[in-house]
This record gives sequence, C-alpha cells and structure tokens, in this order.
Amino acid sequence: MSVGIDLTNRDAYDFWHREQIRFSDTDMLGHVNNVAYVAIIESGRVAFARSGLLGPLTKKFVFVMARIEIDYRAEVHYPADILVGTCLISIGRSSIVLGTGVFTSSFCAATSLTTLVQIDTETRRATPIGENLRVVMEALLPAAPRAQT
Amino acid sequence: MSVGIDLTNRDAYDFWHREQIRFSDTDMLGHVNNVAYVAIIESGRVAFARSGLLGPLTKKFVFVMARIEIDYRAEVHYPADILVGTCLISIGRSSIVLGTGVFTSSFCAATSLTTLVQIDTETRRATPIGENLRVVMEALLPAAPRAQT
Amino acid sequence: MSVGIDLTNRDAYDFWHREQIRFSDTDMLGHVNNVAYVAIIESGRVAFARSGLLGPLTKKFVFVMARIEIDYRAEVHYPADILVGTCLISIGRSSIVLGTGVFTSSFCAATSLTTLVQIDTETRRATPIGENLRVVMEALLPAAPRAQT
Amino acid sequence: MSVGIDLTNRDAYDFWHREQIRFSDTDMLGHVNNVAYVAIIESGRVAFARSGLLGPLTKKFVFVMARIEIDYRAEVHYPADILVGTCLISIGRSSIVLGTGVFTSSFCAATSLTTLVQIDTETRRATPIGENLRVVMEALLPAAPRAQT
Repeated sequence: MSVGIDLTNRDAYDFWHREQIRFSDTDMLGHVNNVAYVAIIESGRVAFARSGLLGPLTKKFVFVMARIEIDYRAEVHYPADILVGTCLISIGRSSIVLGTGVFTSSFCAATSLTTLVQIDTETRRATPIGENLRVVMEALLPAAPRAQT
Repeated sequence: MSVGIDLTNRDAYDFWHREQIRFSDTDMLGHVNNVAYVAIIESGRVAFARSGLLGPLTKKFVFVMARIEIDYRAEVHYPADILVGTCLISIGRSSIVLGTGVFTSSFCAATSLTTLVQIDTETRRATPIGENLRVVMEALLPAAPRAQT
Repeated sequence: MSVGIDLTNRDAYDFWHREQIRFSDTDMLGHVNNVAYVAIIESGRVAFARSGLLGPLTKKFVFVMARIEIDYRAEVHYPADILVGTCLISIGRSSIVLGTGVFTSSFCAATSLTTLVQIDTETRRATPIGENLRVVMEALLPAAPRAQT
Repeated sequence: MSVGIDLTNRDAYDFWHREQIRFSDTDMLGHVNNVAYVAIIESGRVAFARSGLLGPLTKKFVFVMARIEIDYRAEVHYPADILVGTCLISIGRSSIVLGTGVFTSSFCAATSLTTLVQIDTETRRATPIGENLRVVMEALLPAAPRAQT
C-alpha cells in the first residue's frame, strides 16, 4: 500500500506512546525479535484509539484488525526506550488505515500500516462508519489542519 | 514448599500436554527465555483444569493464581518439542496446589508448584471448596488410587 | 503485494508446522491476540528455513526479515491446534518472498507474505543470492515440479 | 522462602525500573496475564544487574536463573504504568537472592524472590562468588548502610 506520507519522519505523528524494550523481547539472534515490534505497534495503536482520537468507544461498534504491513528498517538492541508514533492515514466506508512509526532515540526501527474494520458487535459484520465519527476522524487526516498538542 | 513427590520424575504425572518451543521464545543468551517456561507451565495447567480434572467449570466459582514457584533445572534450546506434566499435589480449605514438570524428549527442564485459590466471581473473595468438588479432586491426589487414563 | 497463488488454500503448501495456541496468546477481547499470529507465522517460517528448503545454513550469509504483510481472516479462540503452511513465492536478486497460511482444523485464520533479504554477516549488507542456492530454491517455486515430501 | 523484609513495601527498594503494560499482556480473563508479570520482573532484574549493582559484568562468569517464586497479590488491568523495585536479599557461596516488587501507582501487584547462580561460562558449573564482587554486593544488603542514589 502506498501512502503519500513518509512514515519514517517523526513529523508525521502528533500522537506518541512510550514503550520499554524488555529483555524477553530479544531472541537468539541477539536483537529484538520481530514479534515484539508488533506488540509495540499495537500498544501505540490502542493508546491512540483510547485517547478518543477515533471517537467515543461504544459497545455497539468496534474496530477490529484486518491487515497489517510492517517494514523492518533497523535492528534494535536491548535495552532501548521506544517512542511509537501513530497517525490516521485514510478513512474508507467501514474501515480506516493507521500509520505507525517505531523510533529509538536515534533512528526509525520500523514503520507500519494497519487496516481496521468497524464491525457491529452483535452481527460481527463490517458496518459503515457513522457521520459523527467520520467528522471527528477527518479532522485528524494529514491534509487537514491539526489541533495543537 | 516441600512436597513428598519428585516432580522431575515423569511417573508423577498422569496428565500430559504437548507444546512447541517457538523461535520468539528464545532470548539474546541463545536459549529459551525463562518467561516462556511460565507460558508453557500455564498451558499445561489450563489444559489440566479444562479436562475436567478440577471438576466442572462454573461461572460462579473460579480458581485464580495466587503463587508460583519454578525451579529452572536445565537450559532448553530452540527447536524443541515439550511435554508438560501436571498433577494435583494438595487440597486446602479454599485453595489447591498443582505440580508441573516441563520435559524435553531427554530431560526435565523445570518443575513448578502453583497455588490456586477458588474465588466467588461476584465478591472476588476466597471461597471454600465445596464437598462435591473436593471428592472429585481427592481421587486425583498422589496417594489415592488413580483412574486409568 | 499481489501473488498469483491463493494462500488461503491448503494446497498452496507442501511444508507444514504444528503449533499450539497458549492461554497467554489470548487477550482481553477474548480471542487470540494478533501478536501471537506473528509468533506462529515466524515458527513456521523458521522451521521451513531450518528444514534445508532454503539451502544449507551458513555463517557467512543469513536471511533477515525486511517486511511482513498479514491478512487477519478469522478470529481464533483458545484452545486450538494450529497448522502453519509455508511456501516460497518468489526469488529476487538478494531477497525472497515466503507465503504463510495459518489454519485451524476447520478454517484459515490468516495469511502472510514475508520478504527476507540475504545479508553478509560481516558487512550487514544485502548480498546477491548465489547460483547454487538459487537452483535449490527455484525447484520450490509454485510453477516448478515439486519434490515429493 | 522467608526473608526478613516486607517486599510489598516500597521502602524495601532503592533501585526502580519503569515498565508499560502492553495490550498483548492481557488475557481472555480481562486482566494482565501472569506470564507478563514474569517478563516485567525480569526487566527490573536485568536493569538492576546492568546498572553495575551486581558488580562489573564479565564474560567469564555470569549469573543464571535457578529459581523464582512469585506471589500474585492483585490483578492489574490495561492500561497501567508499572514501577518495578529490585533489591538484593542475600548472598550465598555461589548464588544470590534478589527481591522484586511490582507496583502500579496505587498498589503492590506482586512480589518475587529470584535465586541466581554464578556459573563459569566455559564449564557451565556453579562457581563461588569472588571476594571483590562479594564486597560490592554486601554494601547493598538491607542491613548494611546503603550508598546514596
């Protein structure tokens, strides 16, 4: 998926989440295992959603994960403090795409695109995003003017 | 805690659960990380509970983990097939102790004792084990004659 | 990335690896967390590589992970036995693409494409795949006749 | 193992390490899975060792994990910031015992005792702790006057 935004650039993100690399995140190759990146990307994504940036959480509709793409750009070694940036990339009929950047203090370790689909928790079916939520989310799109943080 | 049973001996166990070591279970020391042992011990323990050996699962009372002791006896290297043995060690007023052995094809990698407490899911308080369940569980104690499996 | 092969079809795979869902693979949504899928996909991939299907492992050149795409197709609930199929999709100058399917006994839970790059372990730079290895790998491509397993 | 120190009291610790609960640390019971506690306890322990409090790290001798005991004292729910306190409890001939407390902002979630054995990395055998290291470590014992931090 090609998006018109450089996810390796910290300027792409207004929302940040701090994470610690754990010793158990490493593997026998001596670096942080690729699976740990996914846990960290999820941590940033859930923090983004919970911050209200995806609108009020309701019991009736939830966003579930449909797809993830991750580009591994640099090895990370233990120990490391990590900053995860998350941003909204696009809004579809019933789905959205989020962008993520995983950064150490000195470099971008990975970038990711995640597609989330809104489902009705009763029918478990994809459900169009309502107008109210769409308006909230559109204000977060890269082209739109952003609120100060 | 001292128990009168050798948990490194495969004969201590009638209930077995098979697990695979995953590449992400390793750490930068080149062996299986100690955290993965705990996930595997839990897998065996939950399989034991779900098999009905702890009596019928009800919504009203559940066993929650209060304490674990693990003796790490040998390093495990990737890849490895694991067999986890689980047995009932003792029954208290509202708690039980389970024993676990983690085995590769050739050696015992770890043993563990876990204390589980029965709580009432509404009050979240420790609750005495009922007579019916106690009878079911007493038949599993090491001294008692065991059912064929 | 579009590949001319249906990764949700078990026939796409000659190489299979068995995995167990662990209780700790679940999350507070009640199903298997998306991070666990990645650990399982890696388990299958490493087993495929270690089986010799990617040629003899040497100390001088190794394949490192550059990119992964995962399509989450169905929720998995604990407990579950998993079969992971892995196949070679394409061979580039210094990289390869592997396909993965994660299956329960009754459905395909996820499919994945992983791009691995061969690097020189001293320079840490991408290095062209040698002719001998290329010949070994070409025999594994979907279009080519496959060896019996 | 009984130690004359209250591990649920924050005053027991001079060394602190910060951790974040990740979404993938939760399990289908809706709380943080017990396995995640062990990863967090290890994170604190390794940070303690790497800070030089266990003396200079050498290639010839390393401390390996022999035993862990964990008392689970309270459920933790996502999200949570965690502070892990680690302290030295006792020094044996070739082993040491560390104490750990896992704290949220408002309560103690777990305490732990870990026994580490010093081994010779060539022979893989337990090796007595040298006098220089012993002196460094004795200054950390609870009864001894502590260095300012």
